[in-house]
Amino acid sequence: MKLNNQLLVCSIFLLSIFNLNSNVDAKIRHYRWEVKYEFKSPDCFKKLVITINGRSPGPTILAQQGDTVIVDLKNSLVTENVAIHWHGIRQIGTPWADGTEGVTQCPILPGDTFRYQFIVDRAGTYMYHAHYGMQREAGLYGSLRVALPDGEVEPFSYDYDRSIILNDWYHKSTYEQAAGLSAVPFVWVGDPQSLLIQGKGKFDCSKPGVAATDCNATNPECSPYVFTVVPGKTYRLRIGSLTALAALSFEIEGHNMTVVEADGHYVEPFVVKNLYIYSGETYSVLVTANQDPSRNYWAVSKMVSRNNTTPNGLAIFNYYPNHPKRSPPTVPPSGPWWDDVNSRVNQSLLVKSHPNYIHPVPKTSDRVIVLLNTQNRIDGGIKWSINNVSFTLPHTPYLVSLKQNLLHTFEQTPPPDVINGYETYNISEVAPNVNATTSNSLYRLKFNSTVDIILQNSNTLSVKNSETHPWHLHGHDFWVLGYGNGKFNATEDPKKYNLVNPIMKNTVAVHPYGWTALRFVANNPGVWAFHCHIESHFYMGMGTVFEEGIEKVGTLPSSIMGCGDTRRFIKP
Amino acid sequence: MKLNNQLLVCSIFLLSIFNLNSNVDAKIRHYRWEVKYEFKSPDCFKKLVITINGRSPGPTILAQQGDTVIVDLKNSLVTENVAIHWHGIRQIGTPWADGTEGVTQCPILPGDTFRYQFIVDRAGTYMYHAHYGMQREAGLYGSLRVALPDGEVEPFSYDYDRSIILNDWYHKSTYEQAAGLSAVPFVWVGDPQSLLIQGKGKFDCSKPGVAATDCNATNPECSPYVFTVVPGKTYRLRIGSLTALAALSFEIEGHNMTVVEADGHYVEPFVVKNLYIYSGETYSVLVTANQDPSRNYWAVSKMVSRNNTTPNGLAIFNYYPNHPKRSPPTVPPSGPWWDDVNSRVNQSLLVKSHPNYIHPVPKTSDRVIVLLNTQNRIDGGIKWSINNVSFTLPHTPYLVSLKQNLLHTFEQTPPPDVINGYETYNISEVAPNVNATTSNSLYRLKFNSTVDIILQNSNTLSVKNSETHPWHLHGHDFWVLGYGNGKFNATEDPKKYNLVNPIMKNTVAVHPYGWTALRFVANNPGVWAFHCHIESHFYMGMGTVFEEGIEKVGTLPSSIMGCGDTRRFIKP
Repeated sequence: MKLNNQLLVCSIFLLSIFNLNSNVDAKIRHYRWEVKYEFKSPDCFKKLVITINGRSPGPTILAQQGDTVIVDLKNSLVTENVAIHWHGIRQIGTPWADGTEGVTQCPILPGDTFRYQFIVDRAGTYMYHAHYGMQREAGLYGSLRVALPDGEVEPFSYDYDRSIILNDWYHKSTYEQAAGLSAVPFVWVGDPQSLLIQGKGKFDCSKPGVAATDCNATNPECSPYVFTVVPGKTYRLRIGSLTALAALSFEIEGHNMTVVEADGHYVEPFVVKNLYIYSGETYSVLVTANQDPSRNYWAVSKMVSRNNTTPNGLAIFNYYPNHPKRSPPTVPPSGPWWDDVNSRVNQSLLVKSHPNYIHPVPKTSDRVIVLLNTQNRIDGGIKWSINNVSFTLPHTPYLVSLKQNLLHTFEQTPPPDVINGYETYNISEVAPNVNATTSNSLYRLKFNSTVDIILQNSNTLSVKNSETHPWHLHGHDFWVLGYGNGKFNATEDPKKYNLVNPIMKNTVAVHPYGWTALRFVANNPGVWAFHCHIESHFYMGMGTVFEEGIEKVGTLPSSIMGCGDTRRFIKP
Repeated sequence: MKLNNQLLVCSIFLLSIFNLNSNVDAKIRHYRWEVKYEFKSPDCFKKLVITINGRSPGPTILAQQGDTVIVDLKNSLVTENVAIHWHGIRQIGTPWADGTEGVTQCPILPGDTFRYQFIVDRAGTYMYHAHYGMQREAGLYGSLRVALPDGEVEPFSYDYDRSIILNDWYHKSTYEQAAGLSAVPFVWVGDPQSLLIQGKGKFDCSKPGVAATDCNATNPECSPYVFTVVPGKTYRLRIGSLTALAALSFEIEGHNMTVVEADGHYVEPFVVKNLYIYSGETYSVLVTANQDPSRNYWAVSKMVSRNNTTPNGLAIFNYYPNHPKRSPPTVPPSGPWWDDVNSRVNQSLLVKSHPNYIHPVPKTSDRVIVLLNTQNRIDGGIKWSINNVSFTLPHTPYLVSLKQNLLHTFEQTPPPDVINGYETYNISEVAPNVNATTSNSLYRLKFNSTVDIILQNSNTLSVKNSETHPWHLHGHDFWVLGYGNGKFNATEDPKKYNLVNPIMKNTVAVHPYGWTALRFVANNPGVWAFHCHIESHFYMGMGTVFEEGIEKVGTLPSSIMGCGDTRRFIKP
């Protein structure tokens, strides 16, 4: 029961190098990965999956703070490009290694090997995943865990450390899903067919219309994930979510969980029975094996925040020496109601910085950007818009365009800091004018300025419907200043901001009909995506991009070029 | 009932230009195409199809001898590259426009627009299709028809001119098929689910396991293709085959067909009841509407040369003014036996040059290359090999590598002109040593030399099995010197070559356990693929490449570069 066997370190050079932290013991963690399509049955249903070295989830990267991670990524997809994002790594000094196609790099062509090289400058729980089209949900993802430097300890103790990633799983290909989302009339991806816990789920192969050749309930690939524990021991369980759509509740039958870390930052510990986790988030929880050790227990992931048909994901919390496959004698916990918004908001509010690890938040900001999300109709299709602009990625990466002054490659008129008529906008109703436009323009931020982002939720195109959106910021952590119901009040609400012990995160949810306020300092030279982490939502335009300090970015590697207008650089 | 409405000429400049034929009335035929994935139901079963401007088959290109065709191809696939080959166009002077990924160009990235520009220097019936991975069978194909110059006439007469393409159709995606072909253990693509006539087929939606949401027998997209004729009139029907796997027999119930053209060359006319046509071939046949005009007739395509489960494809040969959808009162002809090899060989032998249009064939050759095809096991998978070398494409296009001297990008040891031990090789049995190697090496031909190719068929990995392989040569037509049974005898068989009136073609079949002898002059500077046109066979290694006169190739456009080792040319 070793998660660590997922590690594939091809070579670790015990080489002392200088890095940002001047950590003289920093190592180079060098991985060689090959990406290709293979048939896998993660939930017993056989489908094409993008694997890394034959696996999905891919190898877990284990490193130590200050280390340099090198991933030589060979693309062995036949006709398809790829790019991988290192989710939660700020890429300080290496904005070209962020892995965001269209923002920081051209996609990697079949046959090419691209070198990702970056420093993991802060201990914590991170992830990696494809950031190109909708490839993430084809199975291209994994864990990235950064340990503290030697001699440093966390503000909590545990006996063992484990990483799992929660996911949802579709049987249709990403091509089919993307084609539907772009089609007129619009075809929605629908509910996922199953939920995966560390790459394993269980689809009901006996459903009508499911061919026996496609689905085999006894395939060992879809035996449930087993988390084996020794009675009395305490486990640090690092939980990440990379769902395509689902907001999840995760619980371990009969066991409380103490939340101690969120997105790489220590949390003022709090105890939960079930952990709500949104796509793009990571948490560390402590679990003590303090229940009746003569049996096993269920671990359950459940889709919440949308009424849905997706069965719960199940894993086995196995008390050693019980057999790991022995089913618990109980009915799995059914989890919270999908529509219990209050419970989810309340848990969001509990996530605050550990008192000994507070990063002081600037008391004021230089700029406030209010991002009102609406669902709109454009050219007969359905899109998400921010301030009535549905975001599209350019085919020339912004990072290259901005650094090399290829400004004709994207629209230069920036999107608005607040939508016209925001004061009178009724977020509780369908947008009065559902028309919107598409644009690939971005926000240019003054270097080192402090920026507030207000995520303002609203009603979708369906009456009385508002969804939960987890927003992920590349290149930064932000302080979570507050959450509120209804429309943000620019005069009153900032008075209630938590400026004492706000947590820093890279992903945060905006709840239905609510707002979420963030603050960050634009001090990382580069170009950074900020988007809803629901893959179909970003594909439908729910995102934007920030530029800051482009003039301070070092010489760009030519490896990120070669597409779009950067083809002009090809000079034989 | 106009096939001509498939024409989408965005702009035709009535511009007099100089071209190779000094045809002062040559025009520029300028097309703007957008390639993307859309859901289509060509055989009633809904699947993702690669379309051009919303259609599959794509627009028919209509041009006149000497015209310049310009296709600005925009890739709107989300994460997938593309390349299009102009099948039968020799690309004299424009080898970089041949559209063969890995040979003449890098693939076209999503978002990019690639300009194909070439002269159609000879009247005839041609086609275009994807030449990247297995994209062709995703539906990316169409017709290219080149008319004679004004004032010239064919050596036969007809009232109307029509083009159709025959195809086979799979319901699994090209990704799934390719993944299976590369898998260990090997997963064969199996028989196609249906046969298409000009993009229309009929799958049986009532089969068990077929969901009503996926298959709708009344969808107009899969109404049969209708070929409307006026009683008494004669039609030139241009028939191309772009099947992924199937060799076909095509017939029109109750009507003889007179074969008058093959691959752009006039044939000494001969009459057939059914036309055998192999993937990559084109034929023009004359059909006179001389039967009882009070009813409609079936047109049938049938898969031959492999025992198979694929139902025949059906179209309606509609006598005006009968309703075009009125079913003929008869049972459709069942076509020839799939295993009637003699009948197919005999028809191959009938295809000779029209006496007034003989291109004199050189009486001797400078070099003879014997290509023995075998089926082999490599690293646990199954591959096709030529002289025990299974061909793989490099990721840097040969054309660029050779012209720019990037010779480290592919293996420099050329493949053998004849396999060691050919004299004693028993083609009637499974290869005694089924091991082979993969290689991306190529044949370098002396410029202007005359080269003979002997395609030598043999037994597959299954006892008593040999398949039919249609081989297609890029950049040239070749003379078909002869066909034979069994093993080629280098002393005796050349004495029987047809040096009087051999047909010139770009695609020719080698029949089971037989050989086919070709001759061509290596007089077209460039790098040219030569391969089995069965898409899965080429994917499995059944092909090779010829270089000739690389030093005479003009300056390469940088638009074909940007992948593999040509990334070194990116200099911002």
